[in-house]
Amino acid sequence: MQFTIQKSVEILERTPQLLEIMLGGLSEEWIENNEGPETWSPYDVVGHLIHGEKTDWIPRMEIILSSKADKSFEPFDRFAQFDEGAPKTLTQLLNEFKALRKQNLNRLRAQNITQNDLLQEGRHPAFGPVTLSQLLATWVAHDLNHIGQISRVMAKQYEQEVGPWKAYLGILKA
Amino acid sequence: MQFTIQKSVEILERTPQLLEIMLGGLSEEWIENNEGPETWSPYDVVGHLIHGEKTDWIPRMEIILSSKADKSFEPFDRFAQFDEGAPKTLTQLLNEFKALRKQNLNRLRAQNITQNDLLQEGRHPAFGPVTLSQLLATWVAHDLNHIGQISRVMAKQYEQEVGPWKAYLGILKA
Repeated sequence: MQFTIQKSVEILERTPQLLEIMLGGLSEEWIENNEGPETWSPYDVVGHLIHGEKTDWIPRMEIILSSKADKSFEPFDRFAQFDEGAPKTLTQLLNEFKALRKQNLNRLRAQNITQNDLLQEGRHPAFGPVTLSQLLATWVAHDLNHIGQISRVMAKQYEQEVGPWKAYLGILKA
Repeated sequence: MQFTIQKSVEILERTPQLLEIMLGGLSEEWIENNEGPETWSPYDVVGHLIHGEKTDWIPRMEIILSSKADKSFEPFDRFAQFDEGAPKTLTQLLNEFKALRKQNLNRLRAQNITQNDLLQEGRHPAFGPVTLSQLLATWVAHDLNHIGQISRVMAKQYEQEVGPWKAYLGILKA
C-alpha cells in the first residue's frame, strides 16, 4: 500500500479515542501488569506515546522541512516515560496524549505537505538519511505497533487461565 | 492474573466499540488488505468474531451449564466467515457484532455464575475436558488476539513505506 497523508491521518487521528476505549476504566491489573521484568504495561506504553508526540514525529518533520543546513534528529529516548516526575493517573495520560496528538495533527496539516516535501530528508542518528514520508509512515506503524503490544500484554495476563486453548492463541506465543 | 467474570466482562463489553473506532470509516485498503495469500483482512476478522458469537463462546457455556450427560462441543469452523452468502458492508458487520456481543453478555449475566460453576467441564473436540473458566478466559484472550492481529495486518500495509525504521517495529516481524 502506498503512503498518503490522508490514509495516515485516518489512523493517527483515531488512536487517542481508541486508547480511551481500550483502557479507560479498566481494573488496575489490566493497566499495570506487564509481561515480566524489563517489559512495559499498557500504562507505560501510553507514557511512551506521549513522549513521542513531544519529541519525535512532528519535531523531526519540522527539522526536515526547515531551511537548516544540518537536519540531524535528536536521539529519541525510549525510556523517558519512566523519568517523568510525579506519577499521573491513566486518565491524565490519556487526556495529555489526546491533546498532544490533536496539536501535532494541526501542525502536520498547517504544512500543506507536497509530494516533493515527502521526498525531503533528515538524518536519523542510527539510519542516516530518511525521508519525510518514511518518518510519517513510521508514526502510523508505531501507533499500530503499540496497540498490538497493549493487546498482547493484556492477553498474557490470562495465559494460565485459558488452559489448553493457549495452543490456538498466537498472541500468547509472541 | 486470576480469572474473574468481572475483569473478563470489562474487556468483552468494550470490544465492539473498540472495533468501530479502529475500523469505522477507514479507506478500503486499510479494511480489505491482508498479509498475503491465506491470511485475513480486518474485514475477515470481524466476520470471524461474529461467527464466534453465534456458535462458540456462549453456546459452549450453555452446554457446560446444562444438565445433559454429553457435554461435547460442536467443532468451531474458523473459516465460516468466507461462506456467509451475500457480502455485507463493514458497517453491517460491526453492527451485527455489537448486537450479538450485547445479547451474549446478557446471557452470561443471566446465568449468575458461581465459583463452582466455573469449575464445571465440557468436552472440547481436540483438547478433551475444559472448564467454564478456561472457556471464558479464552473468549477474552481471543478478542485481544484479534485486536492485535488487526493492528499487525494494518501496520504491514506500510512495511515498505517505513524504510529503515522497519528494524525498530516488532509488529512488522511477527
